[in-house]
Amino acid sequence: MLYQFTLKPMTDVKIIEIKKSVFADNDKDADALRSELKRRGVYLLNLMSAPGSGKTTTLIQTLNRIKDRIKVAVMEADIDSDVDAVKIKEATGIPSIQLHTGGMCHLDAEMTRQGLDNVSMDGVDLVILENVGNLVCPAEFDTGAVRNAMILSVPEGHDKPLKYPLMFTVCDLVIINKIDVMPYFDFDLEKCREYIHMRNPEARIIPICAKTGEGVDVLADWLVAEVQNWKQA
Amino acid sequence: MLYQFTLKPMTDVKIIEIKKSVFADNDKDADALRSELKRRGVYLLNLMSAPGSGKTTTLIQTLNRIKDRIKVAVMEADIDSDVDAVKIKEATGIPSIQLHTGGMCHLDAEMTRQGLDNVSMDGVDLVILENVGNLVCPAEFDTGAVRNAMILSVPEGHDKPLKYPLMFTVCDLVIINKIDVMPYFDFDLEKCREYIHMRNPEARIIPICAKTGEGVDVLADWLVAEVQNWKQA
Repeated sequence: MLYQFTLKPMTDVKIIEIKKSVFADNDKDADALRSELKRRGVYLLNLMSAPGSGKTTTLIQTLNRIKDRIKVAVMEADIDSDVDAVKIKEATGIPSIQLHTGGMCHLDAEMTRQGLDNVSMDGVDLVILENVGNLVCPAEFDTGAVRNAMILSVPEGHDKPLKYPLMFTVCDLVIINKIDVMPYFDFDLEKCREYIHMRNPEARIIPICAKTGEGVDVLADWLVAEVQNWKQA
Repeated sequence: MLYQFTLKPMTDVKIIEIKKSVFADNDKDADALRSELKRRGVYLLNLMSAPGSGKTTTLIQTLNRIKDRIKVAVMEADIDSDVDAVKIKEATGIPSIQLHTGGMCHLDAEMTRQGLDNVSMDGVDLVILENVGNLVCPAEFDTGAVRNAMILSVPEGHDKPLKYPLMFTVCDLVIINKIDVMPYFDFDLEKCREYIHMRNPEARIIPICAKTGEGVDVLADWLVAEVQNWKQA
């Protein structure tokens, strides 16, 4: 297995360059990581979406509502840029690191572990991994997370569960973002719910507007309860 | 090389299930395909974007403006669904086939060729390939197209060239779609132009609203001139 691993400081955020081996047995690695995190009492949430769905804004709004209730850390994956981790840190004060995937389209369990090795885990209840903006590849790789969540934004259209079946199948939570612009788009929320439940009948759906904060309380409460229930289980 | 290849008729549109070999030398295949298409006088355009950027609507508007000037065929790639090819055919009357990638995140040159083998090329000037909705992987694979084009929609944000560098580097044309909703999003068109030109100083940028048709005449004229110039070269 080959990893290229560099740390370079920039605007107060740790940036980690990650390279992945193509020979890894990812399902095994993911299960091992999940067990290890369970022992350490750290809940890992894998947050996925298409580019531009509002992952970072949603995170900022959510983090500001949960940070006094549970201890959180964030890993922001991006192909190249550093803007997300800086934004998170500035807007929430929560420790965030940036994972550079070096052009890669997803994170697998070993890449996730490389990131986690650089997170101060002392007393942390929840680590949120913001995956690469992509509705295809990230769905295929178990990161070792307890749960997968995704954001679908209104401008993308309600038909996306038909077109990206695996992503909607593997997600336990679908956040529907940008509901404030619903009047300007042909987005049918009921059809969207129906299509999501075709892929995963158990999926929890939470409509929000990350820009105004509408609905984010529901999301924040869900997340805190999730983590607490899991820790007590 | 292994291909699984099935034809099944549905709603008047040919659906082709494609599987790709991992051993292909894609750059060589792409150059060979490009040369062959050049000999046959068929211009191939590779159209890429994130999910939900409006590729199909843009195509419909454009096709209706060019179909009396040049002869066009369309290949719609999708992981699973058939809605796009049906929509194109119904709205424009233009021959469209659906390529199923079976979960794969991109098309390479051999997959493109498999599609082209199912297109009636007689007298066709232009084939438009609508690639899988994904800003990462499709950028890495030369399809054999004469040019790469992409759509960035306003709700995705003007910072996308910073986050998906390769996609913006390989595209000769960037269509900025959904400009009608610009007032509802923090989208800075001038910054977007600047970021796009950081990646590719030669990129042509055409702002449109596919829903209302605004700007599509410019796009249609550009495309017809492109094809005609290429055929005469």
